[in-house]
Order: sequence, then C-alpha cells, then structure tokens
Amino acid sequence: MPHAPTATLSARHAAIRHAIRAAGVDALVLTHLPNITWLTNFVGSAAIVVIDQESLRFVTDSRYVTSVSDSLQTSHACPDLELVVVDGSYDATLAAGLSGRGYARVGVEGAHLTVSRYRWLEATLAQAAQAPTLVTVDGLVEVARSIKDDWEVALFRTAGAMLADVTRTVLGLPKLGMTERELSLAIDVTIRRAGFEKPAFDTIVASGPNAALPHARPTDRRLGEGELVVLDFGGVYDSYCVDLTRTVVVGPASARAREVHAAVLAAHDRAIAATRPGVSRFDIDAAARDVLTAAGMGAAFGHGTGHGLGIDVHEEPRIARRGPNVDTSREPVQPGMVFTIEPGAYFPGWGGVRIEDDVLVTPEGVELLTVAPTELIEI
Amino acid sequence: MPHAPTATLSARHAAIRHAIRAAGVDALVLTHLPNITWLTNFVGSAAIVVIDQESLRFVTDSRYVTSVSDSLQTSHACPDLELVVVDGSYDATLAAGLSGRGYARVGVEGAHLTVSRYRWLEATLAQAAQAPTLVTVDGLVEVARSIKDDWEVALFRTAGAMLADVTRTVLGLPKLGMTERELSLAIDVTIRRAGFEKPAFDTIVASGPNAALPHARPTDRRLGEGELVVLDFGGVYDSYCVDLTRTVVVGPASARAREVHAAVLAAHDRAIAATRPGVSRFDIDAAARDVLTAAGMGAAFGHGTGHGLGIDVHEEPRIARRGPNVDTSREPVQPGMVFTIEPGAYFPGWGGVRIEDDVLVTPEGVELLTVAPTELIEI
Repeated sequence: MPHAPTATLSARHAAIRHAIRAAGVDALVLTHLPNITWLTNFVGSAAIVVIDQESLRFVTDSRYVTSVSDSLQTSHACPDLELVVVDGSYDATLAAGLSGRGYARVGVEGAHLTVSRYRWLEATLAQAAQAPTLVTVDGLVEVARSIKDDWEVALFRTAGAMLADVTRTVLGLPKLGMTERELSLAIDVTIRRAGFEKPAFDTIVASGPNAALPHARPTDRRLGEGELVVLDFGGVYDSYCVDLTRTVVVGPASARAREVHAAVLAAHDRAIAATRPGVSRFDIDAAARDVLTAAGMGAAFGHGTGHGLGIDVHEEPRIARRGPNVDTSREPVQPGMVFTIEPGAYFPGWGGVRIEDDVLVTPEGVELLTVAPTELIEI
Repeated sequence: MPHAPTATLSARHAAIRHAIRAAGVDALVLTHLPNITWLTNFVGSAAIVVIDQESLRFVTDSRYVTSVSDSLQTSHACPDLELVVVDGSYDATLAAGLSGRGYARVGVEGAHLTVSRYRWLEATLAQAAQAPTLVTVDGLVEVARSIKDDWEVALFRTAGAMLADVTRTVLGLPKLGMTERELSLAIDVTIRRAGFEKPAFDTIVASGPNAALPHARPTDRRLGEGELVVLDFGGVYDSYCVDLTRTVVVGPASARAREVHAAVLAAHDRAIAATRPGVSRFDIDAAARDVLTAAGMGAAFGHGTGHGLGIDVHEEPRIARRGPNVDTSREPVQPGMVFTIEPGAYFPGWGGVRIEDDVLVTPEGVELLTVAPTELIEI
C-alpha cells in the first residue's frame, strides 16, 4: 500500500471536498479503485468510498477488515475513516448508506460506474425514503491526481532514479540468440530485485520485425544479428508507476537503424525541451512529431507522445495529437504533472525504435526523472 | 494471444449470434476486452467489436493494425473479421459504424460500459440519421464463456498439470528467515520458467499473522519458526488463468496448526466430492462451509469457496454463499465449467490456512486439474 502520510491524505480530502461543493453535490461515491487508493491508501481489490463535507465512509468486505483496521493505527492512517463492512453485496450496502442522510444530490463517477450498476442504484434509491438523486460527475478525482503533491513528487524522484539504475543493468542483458521471453524474465527479475513491488505492466521485448509493433508481447523468437530490440518496462514503487523504453541493436547498427534512432532521439529531446508550465500538451506532442515529420518519418509515428503516470500507468494528462474527437480540456501542463515522453517510429516488416523517459513539470520548467543512457547501444 | 483455432472461434460466433437473436437485438457491441479476446483471439489493450448475424467488425487503433492483419493469415485467424481503424476516438468510430446499417436495436454490455460512454453514444446516435436504439444486455458472452469448449478444456488440462509441477517446486522454496517478498519473487520466476506467460495475479506469500489476511501482499517480513505461510499463486497460459494455494509451516507444526489445516483440507475435499453436473453452486459452497462450521471454524471462513477461471482469473460461476442480495441465477453447475475450490480459515493475530485447487465439471462428475500434494508440509 502507498504510505502517504495522514496529513497528505487530509489535504487531498480537503481538495476533493472543495471540488464536491463546486460540482453542486452533497456527497461523492467513489467506485474506481485507483481513486480510492489515492484518497485512502487502500490497495485491495474491492471497496467503495462515500465522501461528504464531514465524513468518509469506507465500504469493504471481510477480507480487508483486519488490514484496514490495522492501518488506522499507523502514521499513514486515512483520517476520519468510518469502516462499513459489506452486508450482502457492495451496491446494496452502498444504497442503504445513501438514504436518510439529508443528501439531495449524490455524485457518482460516470467515467467508471457501469450502466447496469448505475441503473440498479437508481432503481433501488427510487424505492427508498429520503433518498438522494444520483448525478454523474466525471474526472473530479482524476484532475486532482494529475497534479502530484510533495509526497508524490519525492516518491517519483526515488522511483525514477531506481528505474534509471534498473535501465543500466537492463542494457547489459540482451545477448545474440536469447529469446524475447528469456530477456523479459531477466528484466522483470531486475525490476523486482531493485525494490519495485512488481513490473508496472507486461514488459515489452520486441526484436527485429516485432519492433514494428508498439505493443508487442514477448515471444520465443531469438534476438538476431543486426536487429533492433525495443525494451519497454516499468516498476511499481509504493503503488506508483514509472515507465521507460530503450531500443538497442544486436551487433553493429545499420545506417538506417542509426538514422531512425537519431530521429526518434531528437524528437524525444525536443519534446522534453518544449515542456514547461503553461505549454499545451498538444504542443509537446507536436514538438516530437514535427522532428519525425521533418525526417520523413511522420507516418511511422502512429501513437501519442506520452501519458501521465501515477497510481495508474496511464492517466492524465495525455500528451497527444490535437484532432477531431480529441478531448481538448485542460490543455496547458502544470507544475506537479508527471508524464512520459515516448516518441517512436515503426516500419512494418523492418522494425522500429522507441525512446521513453519520465518527466516532472516544475515551476521553472521540466525535470527528467529517469536519467539513463539514450544513445544507440550495440550489444 | 490465445490460439483458439478458427473453427473454435466460428462455433463461438454462432453461439453468440444465437444469443443475440434471443436477446432481440440486431447487433451486439462488445467493449469488454476479455469478451473480445474470447471471440477473436485478440489480446491488446484497446478494441471494440460489433457483431451481427452476418459480420464481425473489429475496431482498433494504429498500434494493433499490423498484428491483427498478420493474425488473419494464421490457423487461429478470427473468421470474417473486418478491420476498422480508429478515426479520432474509439467511440466516435463506433457511433459512425452503427448508423445506416438497418439496425433497429443494438445491444451494449451494461455490466461493462460506463454511464458516461453510454450517454455519449446515446446522444451521438440521437443526432444521426438511421441510427439504432441502444439497449443493455448483460452477461451474454460471460454465460457462454463459463462453459469451456473442447479446445479450452484441453488447454486447462495442460495448464493445470503445469501449475501442479510448479507447485512441487514451490513447496521446496520457503526457508526460515527468507522474506515474503524474496519468496514471492522465487515463486514468480518458477511460474515463468515453467512456460507460463506471467503470474495470473500478484502472488500472495503471507506468513505468521499475515496469513490471517486472505488477500495479503508480500512484505519484507521474514518467515519465522513455527509460522504458517499461505502461498497463493497462478499462471497465465495462452491467455487462460489457473490458480492454486497451499499452506506450509516453518518447522514443526503446532497442534492448532494441524487442526486448522486438517479442517480446511477436509472442507476442500468435501467440496470437490460434492461437485458434479446439476449440483447448485451454493451447495458446493455449503459442502465446504459445513465442515468448517462443524469444526467450530465457520466464522473464520469469510469468503466464498471458489470462482470460475478462464481469460479472467475471476469469472463465472461464483461458488458462494446463498444470501440476501446474492445473484441466484444459473445455479446448477454444468459440464465444461472450470473453477477453484479454496476454503480457508483465518484467525486475526494468529494466522490462517487456505487450500485451493482447480476443477473441471465433467459429464460424469468432476476432474481435479491441479494434482499436487495437499498435506501440511513442515519446511
């Protein structure tokens, strides 16, 4: 579980209570676990939180009662947590707790609650006395989570340095003839031995033509002479995710491999250099994309430039292309945001290159959290 | 990716098309990835499927176009798959593809689609010409997935035997003074070396008082003399999950440890013996629970007896207590169902025992998929 101190959780609660008032609801029901983790330090597989201006009720089942109770005696206790044990089902317990409290309007997370659960809750409350009206509220906790607090910034500096150390080890692991799966296991063991709880996602080891697939899964394919190998891996440290990619070449690099790697690295560097408070997240993407387009590789860069990091490995902000049907809210990046910069260029049948680091937006500009070699390494 | 043969996928499509007709909709939109995996063999992080009586349209983004196209040339190709590349956003692409096709009613997965996505789709379709009405359909694919087909049964026999082999190795790993995290890493490496893609969930190593927490996470706590240690681990094989738990003791077992282990093992054995086609899933739970209650440990068994296994590590059927607010549909178990049997007894401050195996319901009765030692091992 994360060990955010009680005072940090109190500040988060205050921020959410402010946002609840601004949203015009009397209470907010949280069903999305990463949001619950951020607000309470809980990391189990099932819980619901109801937060209003005075209370924070925490609904969980018998499996977690002991660990939640024990946590309340620590320096990272969730303040004012009232434990409610599930009776029958989570949603029945939730519905029973929403009536008779003087709530007129209660917010639920429209971006996470399913249609079926919402309708069941609505129908159940309609039959209860003194029941509130449900309204959907989107992104309220996610927006708060996108600006890291001091405790989170310190944690990201530690985790980023740990991942950079892991990277120095990982760059020495690939060998001609090794399979992608063998290499991914060696990377995962390195991540765990370094002190991470676990890999932040399924490690990608993509060699030769597989390197043209941005989200390849490791196979039994053996690393061959002259091939590019994309290594994309991350770790979870105290429940927070960091994420990094390097691309190496097995033996001497071809001129084309050098050219693609140099263009992707230039795009990566340009996007980081463009990052500072107030800059549009679309313009950070464009900074990377323009470099690749100028190199004739614009069409080879199909994905976005980056994504926020936190309790989720993909969260706000999205460093992406401006375009039709793209959400354009919250465009400027702000101090405290942590995200990846990961341009790539992919050529089906030939291979690809991606280079990814994690950055923190500071009041002054940008801080690179993962300081590890970026040059093309010939193994 | 799973390698279900094309003919197996065709049979699944036929079953779903039959269920779509029975549900009175012209097409079904699938947004839940495990359901999409089962229907198409796709295992990426983003896709939408629209299936009707004639076509199967597969919406994905540029990251997956190459791998999906390549898969169509193999013996496990998804039959009749029409690839649609995302334009702007997934949901905009979906909405554009639902109009003008003569659909009157289109089903969406109410148990998975969020309120916000549903409302956006509904509002967008309301502005389109020749747009269908959306209706929610729950559990249509999940019910089909709960009965494993021949290809899946063969896969589970292989994966179960692999996990049993892993278990024999794992039972030799714990040592006095080792930390829970060290042991969990050693277990995970064993799982990967055995040929599993990855652990099926975060491996549980819970020693001493931690063994009283059914969902403990490994800590830096060292295994101490006389302590019970719960080892709960699983593997993903060709995208399918298997799951097993054993409880060992460090050094000689106390009389109380022997007594609790014997009661849990008797409950485990009784539940397996009670499993055969037509028996209520609640009665299988009761078979285990009655043994523990008779031993005075009924209150120490707070969770359900088991859960279905498949592409998800927790799926239908739920082998659970009958009670208020518990879904009582689909009560009898059927041939082809695969689920865990995992009773436990937990005593806060003292420790706990859980013993878990995976079973297949056969036409004749039950088959134990994970044949590994169940006696209390003193390490």
